[in-house]
Amino acid sequence: MHFTSEQRLGDGVLEHGFTLGDVPGILWTPESAPGPVPLILLGHPGGLDRMHPRLAARARHSVADGYAAATIELPGSGGRPRLAGVDEARADLRRALAAGEPVGDDVVDRLILPLVEQAVPEWRAALDALLALPGIDGPVGFAGGVIAIAVRLALVEPRVAAAVLFAGSYVPRRTFDEARQVTTPLLVQLQWDDEGNDRQAALDLFDAFGTKEKTLHANTGGHTGVPGFEGDDGSRFFARHLK
Amino acid sequence: MHFTSEQRLGDGVLEHGFTLGDVPGILWTPESAPGPVPLILLGHPGGLDRMHPRLAARARHSVADGYAAATIELPGSGGRPRLAGVDEARADLRRALAAGEPVGDDVVDRLILPLVEQAVPEWRAALDALLALPGIDGPVGFAGGVIAIAVRLALVEPRVAAAVLFAGSYVPRRTFDEARQVTTPLLVQLQWDDEGNDRQAALDLFDAFGTKEKTLHANTGGHTGVPGFEGDDGSRFFARHLK
Repeated sequence: MHFTSEQRLGDGVLEHGFTLGDVPGILWTPESAPGPVPLILLGHPGGLDRMHPRLAARARHSVADGYAAATIELPGSGGRPRLAGVDEARADLRRALAAGEPVGDDVVDRLILPLVEQAVPEWRAALDALLALPGIDGPVGFAGGVIAIAVRLALVEPRVAAAVLFAGSYVPRRTFDEARQVTTPLLVQLQWDDEGNDRQAALDLFDAFGTKEKTLHANTGGHTGVPGFEGDDGSRFFARHLK
Repeated sequence: MHFTSEQRLGDGVLEHGFTLGDVPGILWTPESAPGPVPLILLGHPGGLDRMHPRLAARARHSVADGYAAATIELPGSGGRPRLAGVDEARADLRRALAAGEPVGDDVVDRLILPLVEQAVPEWRAALDALLALPGIDGPVGFAGGVIAIAVRLALVEPRVAAAVLFAGSYVPRRTFDEARQVTTPLLVQLQWDDEGNDRQAALDLFDAFGTKEKTLHANTGGHTGVPGFEGDDGSRFFARHLK
C-alpha cells in the first residue's frame, strides 16, 4: 500500500490517496481521534474520479460519526484496464434496454460476475492493508455499491460485521444463492420508483438473505432520490453493530 | 369530555382517564412543559384494558419526546356494546383460518368497515376535545392500530399531519381506493415474517398510497417482534413532521 497524496478536507477530515498494487483507492480518516476507529468501506458503481464528490460527502459523514472510510476503484473502471467481456455485456444490455426487450440472465451474469470475481479479492486485500494501519481497527462495515459484490464480500469476509446495501443494480442468479447463506446484519435501501431497478427482484433478494437481523427501508422516488434521513438511518444501523 | 382519573406514572408523565360521551379514553401528558405540545394519537386493535401496558409504554416514549399522547376505545371492544355484524364476521374469519381456507373479501369488509365507519368520527370528536385542552396544540400524529381506520382518518382529517402505520391487519378493498387519495406523510412498518399478515397485500397497500413522502420499514420477525429501534425511527419520523 503506497500513499500518493494527502489533503485536508476541513471539519477534521483527512483524505489520503493510495494504490494497492495497481488498484487506486482513497482513505478518509479523522485528523485526531482518541484511539483506533472502526472502518466503513464505501461501495460505488465504478469510476472513482466521477464518483469522488458523492464518495467524499459520504466519507465526511462517516468520519463525523467516528469511523475511518475507504474505497477502491472497481476492475475495468477509471484508469484500470477494461474488461472486454463486461464491456460486451454492457453493450448487449444497452441494446436490450433501447429495444425495450427484457434483459436476459446471461447478460446480467456476463456483466456482473466477472466484476465480483475480481473485485472481492481486491477489497479483501485492501481490508488487510487498511486494518494494519495505526488508528484503524475492526469491526468493518460495508455500504453501497454493486450489490452482488457486497453480497459475496459479506459471505466470504467475516471481518464485515454489518452492511448497508442499495438495491439498484442487476442481480445475477448466483447472488440469490449466495444471499441465502449470508448471516451478516443488513440494512437494504430500496428506491420504490427507481426506473432502472426491478422492484420485485429487490424484494425477492431481501427475502432471500439468510440473515436473522435484516431491515428494508423503501422510499418513494427514483434512483438518485434517496432522502437525506436515510444517511442518518445508516449511521444508526452501523452504530448498533460496529460500536 | 369528562376526566375520570389522574395518575402519576413517574418520569414526569401524567395519565388521565376520560370519557367522551360513552367512549372511554386515556390521555398522557407531561407533568410540566414550557408550552403547548403536539399530540400523537395511539391506535390499537381494541381492548384498552388488555392493551394498557403496551399503550402506556408507547405513551411514555411519546411524552419523553415532547408530545402528549391519547387513545380511545374502539367500537365493540372493552366494555362497549358489541357490534353483532363484526362478531359474526370474526367467527367466519376464524372458521376460514381453522379450515385453512382463504379469507374472502366480504368477510374482511364485514369485519373492518363497520369499525371504520363508527371509529373515525369518534377519533375526530376526540381530536376536537383534546386540542381544546390547554397545553395541547396541533399538529397531530397518528400511530398504529387498525390500518383501515388510520387510512380513513388520514384521508378525512387534515389535522393529522403524519402517520406511522403498522401493516398487520386485514385490509378491505375500499381501503386501497382510499389509500390512493391519501397525501399525508407516512411511515409504514411491516413485520416480514408475520404469520397472520399477507405480505403482498401490505406491499400493495404501501404502493397504493398517493403520498409523495412515504417510507416502508420491513424487519425480520413475527407480528409482535418489532425491533426496539423502530420506536426510535418512529420518533424521528414524527419529529420531522410535527416539530
